[in-house]
Amino acid sequence: MRILGIDPGSGATGFGVVDRLGDRLVHVAHGTLRPARSASLAARLHRLHRDLCAVIAQHAPDVAAVEQVFVANSPRAALVLGQARGAILAALASAELGITEYAASHVKRAVTGSGRADKRQVQLMVSRLLALDSPPAHDASDALAAAICHAHAGRLAALAGGRSARPRPTRGARLVVRRVP
Amino acid sequence: MRILGIDPGSGATGFGVVDRLGDRLVHVAHGTLRPARSASLAARLHRLHRDLCAVIAQHAPDVAAVEQVFVANSPRAALVLGQARGAILAALASAELGITEYAASHVKRAVTGSGRADKRQVQLMVSRLLALDSPPAHDASDALAAAICHAHAGRLAALAGGRSARPRPTRGARLVVRRVP
Repeated sequence: MRILGIDPGSGATGFGVVDRLGDRLVHVAHGTLRPARSASLAARLHRLHRDLCAVIAQHAPDVAAVEQVFVANSPRAALVLGQARGAILAALASAELGITEYAASHVKRAVTGSGRADKRQVQLMVSRLLALDSPPAHDASDALAAAICHAHAGRLAALAGGRSARPRPTRGARLVVRRVP
Repeated sequence: MRILGIDPGSGATGFGVVDRLGDRLVHVAHGTLRPARSASLAARLHRLHRDLCAVIAQHAPDVAAVEQVFVANSPRAALVLGQARGAILAALASAELGITEYAASHVKRAVTGSGRADKRQVQLMVSRLLALDSPPAHDASDALAAAICHAHAGRLAALAGGRSARPRPTRGARLVVRRVP
């Protein structure tokens, strides 16, 4: 199973592609989509959509794992993040990818064992789990972490004998899976 | 000049196409894009993007006029509207359309003379201005109103001798133009 992880952002969106081969995780690709700040908002959203479609066409993932957007108390910030998320989800659905969303804390817990790990810890564990020579940039690292989180969730579901699509919380890998409604 | 007006919404997005031929406004088309509620959020956003691209391909507008999203105090509502707006803006920019946004109150004032007009008044004035046999549904009516508002703004700019891209407020047609940042 090939998993495309996404860390959506209004300025930069990280992506990471990971293969799950039985119990093994194999790094395929990662990067950051960062439309020029000088472009208009609409042009940036278009490029985000177009570039993500190109990533999907290049790597042909089976599923997508998206880190949930954290919406604080600012409607303005929520609108800005929502716009990026709209372009991203439209691109993922254009390829008919199944999409699972994970809270940031669950992604962190899946790769580091702690839901409060900082970005540096996530980077290091992603590097170690995927045997990378150097840690990826933060956005790409978080995206790879989302893909790893999804791979773990799938393995847990398989261990549960496919009795439930929702993996049970387990020690060290408490994963909450929420389908995009 | 052919203008595509858009009234973005999380459930339904209205569109309206109007030609400005000198001082005349000519209705071309209108409709509502309403992806099935039974589909996933991502699938709905993809269909909104795809269907809007199809509308653009069919009618080949020169510019787009988008009614501004009203963001109240709810981050959740802002996120939902932002997602629809992200898919819409990405579609408009994919066709390299110039995009101008108008506050709802300015759109209403441009077609009815009052920024506090209700939807029924907007419907009736849109019908009258475009010589339609029957009033379009609310979403499409608001989208046609945005296109009419943009046509007025262009005419005012032309009357001002092209000295400024921002039309001056005038009696009965006070228009504030805000470029998408």
